[in-house]
Amino acid sequence: MRHFYVKSTKGRTCGDFNLNDTAGGAGRLDIIARAVNSALWLSHSLRRDVVFHTILFGEPNPPIYIKITGEKVRKVQPDERNITIFLKKAIERFEEGRVTQTTPGIFSSRKTFEELVEENKACDFYILCEDGDDISSVDISENAFFVLGDKEDISDDEVKVLEDAGARKISLGKTPYLTSHCVGFLNMYMDRMEEKADK
Amino acid sequence: MRHFYVKSTKGRTCGDFNLNDTAGGAGRLDIIARAVNSALWLSHSLRRDVVFHTILFGEPNPPIYIKITGEKVRKVQPDERNITIFLKKAIERFEEGRVTQTTPGIFSSRKTFEELVEENKACDFYILCEDGDDISSVDISENAFFVLGDKEDISDDEVKVLEDAGARKISLGKTPYLTSHCVGFLNMYMDRMEEKADK
Repeated sequence: MRHFYVKSTKGRTCGDFNLNDTAGGAGRLDIIARAVNSALWLSHSLRRDVVFHTILFGEPNPPIYIKITGEKVRKVQPDERNITIFLKKAIERFEEGRVTQTTPGIFSSRKTFEELVEENKACDFYILCEDGDDISSVDISENAFFVLGDKEDISDDEVKVLEDAGARKISLGKTPYLTSHCVGFLNMYMDRMEEKADK
Repeated sequence: MRHFYVKSTKGRTCGDFNLNDTAGGAGRLDIIARAVNSALWLSHSLRRDVVFHTILFGEPNPPIYIKITGEKVRKVQPDERNITIFLKKAIERFEEGRVTQTTPGIFSSRKTFEELVEENKACDFYILCEDGDDISSVDISENAFFVLGDKEDISDDEVKVLEDAGARKISLGKTPYLTSHCVGFLNMYMDRMEEKADK
């Protein structure tokens, strides 16, 4: 399995936002929607071996954790608006004290970042940041769990939690890229590495 | 300069579509909007050295050529809806017989694919397709003009026009990827090559 986590620093935790204003009222859920597209879509299918994670830290009810499993997700289209409709459902159907499958393959629940890392400690964590080791110099595990910020980097406390879990900082270059572009690049880079290894 | 051309096989050539239905009524302009995002956006700025080209071949008034120059474009946000608003303006403000700057850095005019290739013959053309040479085995020019399809590949006639102009077929791997993911990967791959060459 390949995992991507994108922090949503201000992602709204109530479904009262307008789908025409996801960059504003929804607390930059447009960034999350584009990252979901990059994480899960291929040309005519979905990546069944990818799990996408986000935690929304925006008002009024943080943190809400959303997990999207490529293996089980259905009916979602790759455009930003459609993905956001499903994120909105995950937020609206969130229930305190339990894990809710809000639509096929999409789950919401209460979870802190520390709990998420603890739950996934069997994975190898990689923090994407410009001052990390260049990806070409790192042997990325098949069980990679990539951690990215949205418009803001993850916090120092979150870096500490990850480093305590053995995380390594990696970089895709000196240029600061959009989160969704990093996710897409990582998927294709990893595919290429795996194809090469199969030869 | 780095150039990307994405064919819009069915992109609507009249601005009468609904922004909430760009995957439907607009003839998959959502694909073009995502490709524009991948071609031009960095984290906190735009790629000033990239030019994005598309020709819309959908009804009722094809072909309409739209050019977006990273150097001059302004006020556009990276979300699909906002980019589509600017594409819609380019279509609505199209005028027969002249090149119109419909908003800063965005131009529309009548142009065939043959004319576009002829105008850019100083560039080195690369056709993205799964059966091309793997990109790692090709020395990509600094003056690259990448050509991609949308949901459909470009036609055999278009391949012929490009090959007559010296185009080379290149591949990013055996997996069929979304167009926008290929554009994003190419940008980051080329950045990495250039960084390496600078060392």
